[in-house]
Amino acid sequence: MAPPSLHETIKVVEKMVTRRVDLRSDTVTKPTESMRAAMASAEVDDDVLGYDPTALLLETKMARIMGKEAALFVPSGTMGNLIAVLVHCEVRGSEVILGDTCHINIYENGGISTIGGVHSRQLKNNDDGTIDIDLIESAIRDPRGELMFPTTRLICLENTHANSGGRCLSVEYTDRVGEVAKKHGLKLHIDGARIFNASVALDVPVDRLVEAADSASVCLSKGIGAPIGSVIVGTKNFISKAKRLRKTLGGGMRQIGILCAAALVALKENVGKLESDHKKTRLLADGLNEIKGLKINPLSVETNIIFIDIVDGTRTATEKICKYLEERGILVMHDKPSRLRVVLHHQISTSDVQYTLSCFQQAIQIENGN
Amino acid sequence: MAPPSLHETIKVVEKMVTRRVDLRSDTVTKPTESMRAAMASAEVDDDVLGYDPTALLLETKMARIMGKEAALFVPSGTMGNLIAVLVHCEVRGSEVILGDTCHINIYENGGISTIGGVHSRQLKNNDDGTIDIDLIESAIRDPRGELMFPTTRLICLENTHANSGGRCLSVEYTDRVGEVAKKHGLKLHIDGARIFNASVALDVPVDRLVEAADSASVCLSKGIGAPIGSVIVGTKNFISKAKRLRKTLGGGMRQIGILCAAALVALKENVGKLESDHKKTRLLADGLNEIKGLKINPLSVETNIIFIDIVDGTRTATEKICKYLEERGILVMHDKPSRLRVVLHHQISTSDVQYTLSCFQQAIQIENGN
Amino acid sequence: MAPPSLHETIKVVEKMVTRRVDLRSDTVTKPTESMRAAMASAEVDDDVLGYDPTALLLETKMARIMGKEAALFVPSGTMGNLIAVLVHCEVRGSEVILGDTCHINIYENGGISTIGGVHSRQLKNNDDGTIDIDLIESAIRDPRGELMFPTTRLICLENTHANSGGRCLSVEYTDRVGEVAKKHGLKLHIDGARIFNASVALDVPVDRLVEAADSASVCLSKGIGAPIGSVIVGTKNFISKAKRLRKTLGGGMRQIGILCAAALVALKENVGKLESDHKKTRLLADGLNEIKGLKINPLSVETNIIFIDIVDGTRTATEKICKYLEERGILVMHDKPSRLRVVLHHQISTSDVQYTLSCFQQAIQIENGN
Amino acid sequence: MAPPSLHETIKVVEKMVTRRVDLRSDTVTKPTESMRAAMASAEVDDDVLGYDPTALLLETKMARIMGKEAALFVPSGTMGNLIAVLVHCEVRGSEVILGDTCHINIYENGGISTIGGVHSRQLKNNDDGTIDIDLIESAIRDPRGELMFPTTRLICLENTHANSGGRCLSVEYTDRVGEVAKKHGLKLHIDGARIFNASVALDVPVDRLVEAADSASVCLSKGIGAPIGSVIVGTKNFISKAKRLRKTLGGGMRQIGILCAAALVALKENVGKLESDHKKTRLLADGLNEIKGLKINPLSVETNIIFIDIVDGTRTATEKICKYLEERGILVMHDKPSRLRVVLHHQISTSDVQYTLSCFQQAIQIENGN
Repeated sequence: MAPPSLHETIKVVEKMVTRRVDLRSDTVTKPTESMRAAMASAEVDDDVLGYDPTALLLETKMARIMGKEAALFVPSGTMGNLIAVLVHCEVRGSEVILGDTCHINIYENGGISTIGGVHSRQLKNNDDGTIDIDLIESAIRDPRGELMFPTTRLICLENTHANSGGRCLSVEYTDRVGEVAKKHGLKLHIDGARIFNASVALDVPVDRLVEAADSASVCLSKGIGAPIGSVIVGTKNFISKAKRLRKTLGGGMRQIGILCAAALVALKENVGKLESDHKKTRLLADGLNEIKGLKINPLSVETNIIFIDIVDGTRTATEKICKYLEERGILVMHDKPSRLRVVLHHQISTSDVQYTLSCFQQAIQIENGN
Repeated sequence: MAPPSLHETIKVVEKMVTRRVDLRSDTVTKPTESMRAAMASAEVDDDVLGYDPTALLLETKMARIMGKEAALFVPSGTMGNLIAVLVHCEVRGSEVILGDTCHINIYENGGISTIGGVHSRQLKNNDDGTIDIDLIESAIRDPRGELMFPTTRLICLENTHANSGGRCLSVEYTDRVGEVAKKHGLKLHIDGARIFNASVALDVPVDRLVEAADSASVCLSKGIGAPIGSVIVGTKNFISKAKRLRKTLGGGMRQIGILCAAALVALKENVGKLESDHKKTRLLADGLNEIKGLKINPLSVETNIIFIDIVDGTRTATEKICKYLEERGILVMHDKPSRLRVVLHHQISTSDVQYTLSCFQQAIQIENGN
Repeated sequence: MAPPSLHETIKVVEKMVTRRVDLRSDTVTKPTESMRAAMASAEVDDDVLGYDPTALLLETKMARIMGKEAALFVPSGTMGNLIAVLVHCEVRGSEVILGDTCHINIYENGGISTIGGVHSRQLKNNDDGTIDIDLIESAIRDPRGELMFPTTRLICLENTHANSGGRCLSVEYTDRVGEVAKKHGLKLHIDGARIFNASVALDVPVDRLVEAADSASVCLSKGIGAPIGSVIVGTKNFISKAKRLRKTLGGGMRQIGILCAAALVALKENVGKLESDHKKTRLLADGLNEIKGLKINPLSVETNIIFIDIVDGTRTATEKICKYLEERGILVMHDKPSRLRVVLHHQISTSDVQYTLSCFQQAIQIENGN
Repeated sequence: MAPPSLHETIKVVEKMVTRRVDLRSDTVTKPTESMRAAMASAEVDDDVLGYDPTALLLETKMARIMGKEAALFVPSGTMGNLIAVLVHCEVRGSEVILGDTCHINIYENGGISTIGGVHSRQLKNNDDGTIDIDLIESAIRDPRGELMFPTTRLICLENTHANSGGRCLSVEYTDRVGEVAKKHGLKLHIDGARIFNASVALDVPVDRLVEAADSASVCLSKGIGAPIGSVIVGTKNFISKAKRLRKTLGGGMRQIGILCAAALVALKENVGKLESDHKKTRLLADGLNEIKGLKINPLSVETNIIFIDIVDGTRTATEKICKYLEERGILVMHDKPSRLRVVLHHQISTSDVQYTLSCFQQAIQIENGN
């Protein structure tokens, strides 16, 4: 957590110069030449005092793509989700229903409670990222109910659901949750950090996937490769409130046209590459599954994420494998004691996949003492 | 507050094509060619999963310039101040002492309370932006004191103090407040959004101005002209906590080297231009003061901000003046009913100053029925 | 939720004059003659400006009984738990681990998040009120860990666990959780609203049941029958902080000796009656289980709570049964659609139990159309 | 702050047996025999699960007295104010306008921010406890205004204003503030901890003093002498929300009829004694003002509070005076370094006033070395 020492800084720089297959996340992509050119020539203005024209263009475009009235650029997916939950739960004493392994619950510092004072009701996520509809319905509090109950105001889903290995929520499922929400006067927010991956994998237009939702967040710096930013979409009223809250959180930035220009290029050039990312992911998953000592649930590989279990693995053994790979320029996430996570993106080639398979093979052999 | 309609969008675009003397704030500057070139070629990496090398470079440099152990890039000055207050007041039940007209109190959505649950004690700001030392000392709560008191943990100053017209806090004053803070075991944070302006105006090294402070925020997108971002500085421990909190607020961004590259150019090229900004500000202030019907306190013009009172002016009359100026491409802030604010920056030329004076002259003549 | 109309007020008064077997909770007991006498003659003083002597006496006594350094009287169990969680999680960004069906999570308005900004990690409660130790351990966040994690600071248990039917956590289990807490530098709080019931049922001294805990709350107005109040216990430092927080929440009250005098009587006279309460609970449970159409898990009846499932029952059918009972003066809680909850206490006689059984028998017969 | 040691406990008990003229506050009164009798025979029920009949009676009566639709008993004035502010500011991002020396701002732990996340705008209180109407109006934020502004939702006044020496706000003043509030769509809350004192001093019915307000809190344990509690009044909708929030804060208590019975007696017996309290206060103030070395602003003595300045006094000298008085059983508050506060109530007799004057005389003589 401490800022890096000179020694660490040098290590960071060193890593820049060796071959790297960075599979830690799809957030690690570097901006392409066309993005850099777009940033260098972007029309900009102060987006706090008024509107940055390129931001306006991106927001208008994203609203249209997602089938919502309006959109807002935000610095990160974490801020996008935080704003969405806080707008829907603007009244003190609100409760949000969400899955127990979802990103908001596990990887966003508990910000909805810590910063927003929103209580959560954490329901079991199934292996496919869904929450049982009955379970959701039974967790909704009766607003005329007991004095000791907070008021349920929001349901959150995540599509694709990262902690399930990037699995997709179907239109049917999402619509059914939307119906439950409407029936009880609740809002539905979809954390669509990787919603384009779901759209491609399910072969469903992306707006259809969030049709039942009152709001969604979409990450620009994951699969589609922009350097910075997410967008949230919803009604004009939702976005108005979101804009004020973005300012409160310190997410109001000045000449953001720079970043939005890169995002516009990313939307144009990289959405089309997701299908190829998924194919390479499947190739890598199948190859890893053939390595004795590794185990992957093939059902879970629907998009660009793979969870790899080290059979009979310990934390130490798994760390050794990570280290072996890192020395060969392959970066992966150490998720649970004996589990690794890899995520593919448009800057991973088929050759990178082959190289990764070969390094894994060697790492396991060494680890197993062969 | 609602997102812009097509009509408004067109108006925004129209404004882009006419001559503009934008005096609303020094945040409105456009990135220069050299900044754009730097952004286009910046070395970057994922700053959430590790460190972006260009961000590291900027942070290291800013820490050195400000004379502190460590630094952190944040999306905005608002987030910088919010993080600083929240880190110093990390324990529930904290109170911060600040000036009643300071930026944190008036222009940051009350975020320290709304988001951070920190109570403020708002003391009278003098005309020069200071708070009387005695007043500060008498407002500090005895931590062993009554059960009904929150615990004072922080004092905030602002240098230059925007709402006083950008006046500078001296080294002597800041040091004395620092002594009071130390004596009572409190922290001192300086909102140094325009600390480089103070440094230039006072002819004092910028690190000297924050020597007594435990932390400071510095804006990159005000006077020195970077498109986006601020930096906070402090001890390594402070920055460690700040980094986690930045993530919580949603200010953790990915390839921020893009933005930091522009900031590095801004530091190099634009700090030297502040002296000229101040001269042009004085030129404009003196000229405006000669116009009958306008009144400026010459004492208050120390850096790049001017408050212009419309003598015997009403809100409506002042609005008319604004409109007249706007139609001629001159944008100013309507601050109080009969008060305007203008802020100069490196993209305002001497010719812009002359043009502004001439338009003001005409506006006042028309308004006064001559 | 709206304040009662005159009509409702009359109904409230009417209820006062008919026979009543109030099984909704053990909080419904009326103060006894000896408690009323104690209240009428209590020595009191202003407990906000200093110390009320009778409160001091109660707090000293409760600290000794619970085996902790110090104690504090609070208006309610909800405030006791809220204060305990907030003291242990006094630093912003804290996370508490608790069971998903525990009282704090379900029946306290989400106050720890809503009011305290504490994020919770809700783990599956087993049928016996425990949480698997492994599950707890795997949910603890590494404090040096990822930037996106809140900091785990507290584990909460509840003994007896109300939503499991008042089942008792053993010394062994509690000690093991305490060890996990210590190993990871966490605190352990026990919601001991009914800890005296657990002590009696397990035949273990009450202090032994909280030995592993850093703090505990104990309800005075549940089984032991005082009209108002709970007590929290812990170290002197914990209680110091708790006292300030009690003031912040508005729980600092003046001449509380009145209430503490009643509690001292309750401690003296009613703890000894809990064993009899449990016997009558078992009698009622066994009798109800013999009624065809009702189902009780006999394993769950360890203390003074019974959950009664209406076999093949609907919400409407269950409501009818409640209404039938209510018309005969028997008040029960409608918990889930086809589940009722009854709680026994020292003002329920064996005759009340027989009467209740007989009314239940009739209600079911009618409901089943016999 | 630490819990009292045995030694301290003994000191507390010792104080009970010596003559005491307790002038620290009007909260120190002991319940009278008639209150104790009422508590001993009060009709009660569980006020959390339903309604306590005596609480209902008190609440109905207080609503009528204050001229509002509904009322709610709360454990303390601090909780009453906290609930009122939080109900009116239930939406995140709210700002409340209040006086800089008012009780909520100085003596309630900053709870509205710390616990409630409400930002305050602290305006200068004049010597008479008012805030200039113009100042209030200029501090109200335009809700359609800048993104960086919180939303003003509430104005708070305090009547009598304790920190001004218990001075009364007139009907005219309160009505004018009420008009400003209505004009801007804001709510007005009156902290009426000592509103009965104002009513008596101004000879105006108490309901008239809060006619312009949307809510008010009234303390039962100050001048009118009940042992515990306050009441808040407002619309039915306000009270509904207040009731839920009271539960959240842990202020929902069980058989509160005990406390409400005492309050009903206090209302009946003690409101009529306030005029005599004020006369004795004037007697004491005049006497003290004749003592050379003491100074009291006679204008400020309108009700039952006196601020006594020690002329040319130091903190140490003032402490000595306090100690001298305390040794003679006279307890006063040490307010500022050279200022004392005394508050009269129905348990201070004319003889106590004479005794106090005589002891003050001696203390000053000794202090001045005569």
